[in-house]
Amino acid sequence: MAAVEAKTLKGFRDFLPEQMAPKEAMLRRIEQTFAAHGFVPLQTPALEYLETLMGKYGEEGDKLLYRFADHGGRDVALRYDLTVPLARVVAQHRGALQMPFRRFQIAPVWRADKPQRGRFREFMQCDADIAGVNSAMADAEVLTTGLAVLRALGVLDATNRGAVLSINHRFVLSGLLIAAGVSDAEQQLLCIRAIDKLDKIGPEGVSAELQSAAGTSAETADAILALFADPELSLQKVDDVLVERAGYEGEKRANSIGRLRQVIELVEAAGFAGAIRFDPTIARGLDYYDGIIYETRLTDPKVAGIGAVMSGGRYNKLIGMFGKEDVPAVGISLGLDRLLAGLQELDLVPKGLAVVPVYVATFAGAEAAALQIAMDLRAAALRVEVDLAGGKPGKQFERASKRGASLVVLAGSDELERGAVQVKDLRSGVQSEVERSALASWVQAALA
Amino acid sequence: MAAVEAKTLKGFRDFLPEQMAPKEAMLRRIEQTFAAHGFVPLQTPALEYLETLMGKYGEEGDKLLYRFADHGGRDVALRYDLTVPLARVVAQHRGALQMPFRRFQIAPVWRADKPQRGRFREFMQCDADIAGVNSAMADAEVLTTGLAVLRALGVLDATNRGAVLSINHRFVLSGLLIAAGVSDAEQQLLCIRAIDKLDKIGPEGVSAELQSAAGTSAETADAILALFADPELSLQKVDDVLVERAGYEGEKRANSIGRLRQVIELVEAAGFAGAIRFDPTIARGLDYYDGIIYETRLTDPKVAGIGAVMSGGRYNKLIGMFGKEDVPAVGISLGLDRLLAGLQELDLVPKGLAVVPVYVATFAGAEAAALQIAMDLRAAALRVEVDLAGGKPGKQFERASKRGASLVVLAGSDELERGAVQVKDLRSGVQSEVERSALASWVQAALA
Repeated sequence: MAAVEAKTLKGFRDFLPEQMAPKEAMLRRIEQTFAAHGFVPLQTPALEYLETLMGKYGEEGDKLLYRFADHGGRDVALRYDLTVPLARVVAQHRGALQMPFRRFQIAPVWRADKPQRGRFREFMQCDADIAGVNSAMADAEVLTTGLAVLRALGVLDATNRGAVLSINHRFVLSGLLIAAGVSDAEQQLLCIRAIDKLDKIGPEGVSAELQSAAGTSAETADAILALFADPELSLQKVDDVLVERAGYEGEKRANSIGRLRQVIELVEAAGFAGAIRFDPTIARGLDYYDGIIYETRLTDPKVAGIGAVMSGGRYNKLIGMFGKEDVPAVGISLGLDRLLAGLQELDLVPKGLAVVPVYVATFAGAEAAALQIAMDLRAAALRVEVDLAGGKPGKQFERASKRGASLVVLAGSDELERGAVQVKDLRSGVQSEVERSALASWVQAALA
Repeated sequence: MAAVEAKTLKGFRDFLPEQMAPKEAMLRRIEQTFAAHGFVPLQTPALEYLETLMGKYGEEGDKLLYRFADHGGRDVALRYDLTVPLARVVAQHRGALQMPFRRFQIAPVWRADKPQRGRFREFMQCDADIAGVNSAMADAEVLTTGLAVLRALGVLDATNRGAVLSINHRFVLSGLLIAAGVSDAEQQLLCIRAIDKLDKIGPEGVSAELQSAAGTSAETADAILALFADPELSLQKVDDVLVERAGYEGEKRANSIGRLRQVIELVEAAGFAGAIRFDPTIARGLDYYDGIIYETRLTDPKVAGIGAVMSGGRYNKLIGMFGKEDVPAVGISLGLDRLLAGLQELDLVPKGLAVVPVYVATFAGAEAAALQIAMDLRAAALRVEVDLAGGKPGKQFERASKRGASLVVLAGSDELERGAVQVKDLRSGVQSEVERSALASWVQAALA
C-alpha cells in the first residue's frame, strides 16, 4: 500500500495533551458548576436527519451544514449546534422528560465555514438550557449559571469585575424598529442581522447593510441608527420609546421591557450586580430567538478583543417546529475556544493532567518491582509513569525530566532487599532513601 | 415551514440524563485511572481525509466508513476508531510529542454497520495507548491500566475475581498456522479471521469458513482446529509446537512465546494474578495487530454473555503506514456500552448526577431570596435546583418529589424576616426551621 500523508483537514484540529489537558480541566469545572445549578447531562448523536436541522439557522446556516446521503440513501447532516438537537429531543421524548428540563451538553459541532483566526470547522460547544417554563426565574437561572461558570473559572471575580453580560430582548428590538418605521416582521429580521454587526462594521456599515440587505430607505436607516447607536439609551428611555412610538402596553410591555427589568433585578440579587447591563444593540444572528438575548464579554483590556464568551437567548417556538406543542426554552452557550484563549492570556488556566509528577525507573531483572511500586503509588491517588525502556539511571532521569516529572523512584535490587527505595527529587537534585512501606505518604508530602 | 418529525437515525441514540449521568460518572472514573497510570488526554477531529482511514481496517471496515465529499470536494470520512487517528497524530506531530507517548482518548466513532442488539452506528470508544517503545513493560503497562480500570469500576475485585483477560500473540497464531500447514501470510490473515469467530460459530462453522473464505483443504482445517480447539493447549505446549513444527527459535521465539510469558508474569506481579490467562484462540479481527492481542470478559454468570469489555493489541507497523519511520505501539480499548450494561446488571453503576438532591421553592415576591439561597448552597458544593414556576407549596413539593429531590427549602417572607428558612425532608416528611446562616451545613448533614 502506498504511504499516505499524515495531515488534518483545514479548519480541523488535533488537541495534543499540552492543549487538551487544560481544556479538559476547564470542562470539568464547567460541568461541576452546571451540576451545582441542577443541570443534568444529555448526549445526542453527531448525525441527524437533514430535515431536522434545515431551516433553523437561516439561509447562511443551512449552507454551512455538512450534509451527505448515508449508506441507506437517507439525507443526513452533522449537527450545527446543540440547541436544535435539544429541541428535537424535547419534542421526541416529551413523555420521558421531567419538566422543566434542565440539561447541559458539551460536544463538538460542525460548520463548513471559511476557516480563519479563531474560527474552525469543528469546535466544542457547551450549553445549558431550561425547557418547559417561560418565567423570569428561568431566564435568571440560566444567566446566573453562566455567570457562576465565569466566576468558577476565575474570569469574573467576587466583586463582579472581569466580565459583563449585555442583555436585550427581541421584542425590545422589534419595538425600537417599529418606532423607527419598520413594522414588517421579515424586514425586522433582516434589520436585526444588520444591527448585530454594529460592533464589527460600525454605524456606516450597518446603515449600508440596512439599505442593501434589509431594503430600508436612507431615512429609516438613519432613524434606526439614531436609536440604536445612542449611548444614553437606558432601559427607562427605551420603555418610553416603546410605549409612545411602538404602542407597547399591558402584556406586551410586561413581556418585553418588564421581563428584562425583572431578569436584571434577579441576576443582580443572586450576587452578580455589576456583571449584567442592558444593551439595546445586542441582536444575536440566529432566527429562533424570541425573548431575552444576551452575550458576555471579558473586560480586562488584555482580552477585550476576544469576542463573546457566553451568549444565548430564549426560544419559545423552536421546539414546536417539530410538529408538537410549543415548549418555551432558554439557554446559554459558552465559547470554549475563546474562554480557553482568555484564560491563557490572563494566566488563569486550570492545572491540567499534561504532566505526570512521579516517574518510576526500571532496572533489568527488577521490572516487576517497578510495576508493583507504581501500582502502590497509584492506589494512593498519585499519577505515576513507569519507565518502559530501562537502561542507565542517567538516561532514565533524562527521560523523566523531559516528561516534566518532579520525583523519580529507583528500585534497585539492593534497596529492595532491605525494604527500601531511592527517590530522586529532580527539582532539587537531592536523592533520599525511603522505606517502601512509607513511600506513598513520603511522595505525597514531597509533592505538596 | 412544514413541521418536521422528531426522530433519531437508526443505529443512533439519545442518552437522556438517566442514562447519561451514570455513563458520565463511569467515564470520569476511567479518566482518573488513565491519569493515575500516566496517560494524558488527546483529542482528534471527527472527520479525517478518507485516505487516512482507508485500507487500515480490512475490506469490511472500509465499506462501513461514513464517507462523503465536503464543500471543497475533498473525500472525507468520519473516524472509525481511535487507533488510526492516533497513528496519524504520532506520524504528523512526531517532533512535538514526548516519546513514549501515552495518551488516552474518549470519543465517539461511526460505523455504517447493520444495527442490532448492542451494536450501534455511533458509539463511544475509550482507548489508552503507548507509542514509541516495544517492550514487555509497555505491554504490561497498558494491560495493568485496563485491569485497574475494571477494578476501579468494581467488576474486578481485590482478589481478581470478576474478569479475565485472555492474551495471545499474532506470531503464536501464525506459528500454530504454520504448524498446521498454512505458511502464506495472506492466507494466514484469512484463517485468523475465521478462528476469531470460534466463540460465535463453533468449530464446525470455523472449519467451513476456513475452507470457503480462507481456501484451506479439509485436512488443513482439521489440523488447525485440532490445535486451536484443544483445551489443554498450554503456553508450554504451544512453545513445543512452535519450536518443533514451525521452526521458531532465537529472536523469533523470544519475541512471541517469550514475550507472552514476560507480559503475563509482569501483569501478575503488578497485582493481577488470576485475572490474566493465555488463550491461543484469541485472534482479533483487525489486520494491523502484529504482537500481543487480548480481550477481557466478565466472569459473573449474570453478565458472561456480554462480550469483550476491554481488548486490543500491539501494532508496530500502523504508524509507519503514514510514510514515516515505524513507531511501535500497543493499546487497549474499553467497550463502554458493554461495561455500562454489565455494571447495571451487577448493580455497580456509579452514582451519577441525574438526581438533584436540593430543591428551593419559590414564592411570589420572594424570588430573589430563593435565588440567593440557592447560590449560597451551591457555593457550599451542593447541587441545587430552584423552582421556576412558583405557586402553592403542595405543587412545588410535588415537582421536587418528581425530580427525586430529598430536601425542599422554603423561604417565605415571615421566616426570612427572622433570618430563617423552613426545610422539608421529603424522605421523612419532617419540616424544620433552620437558621439561614447555618443552612448549608444543616443541608450537608441531612444529606450525608
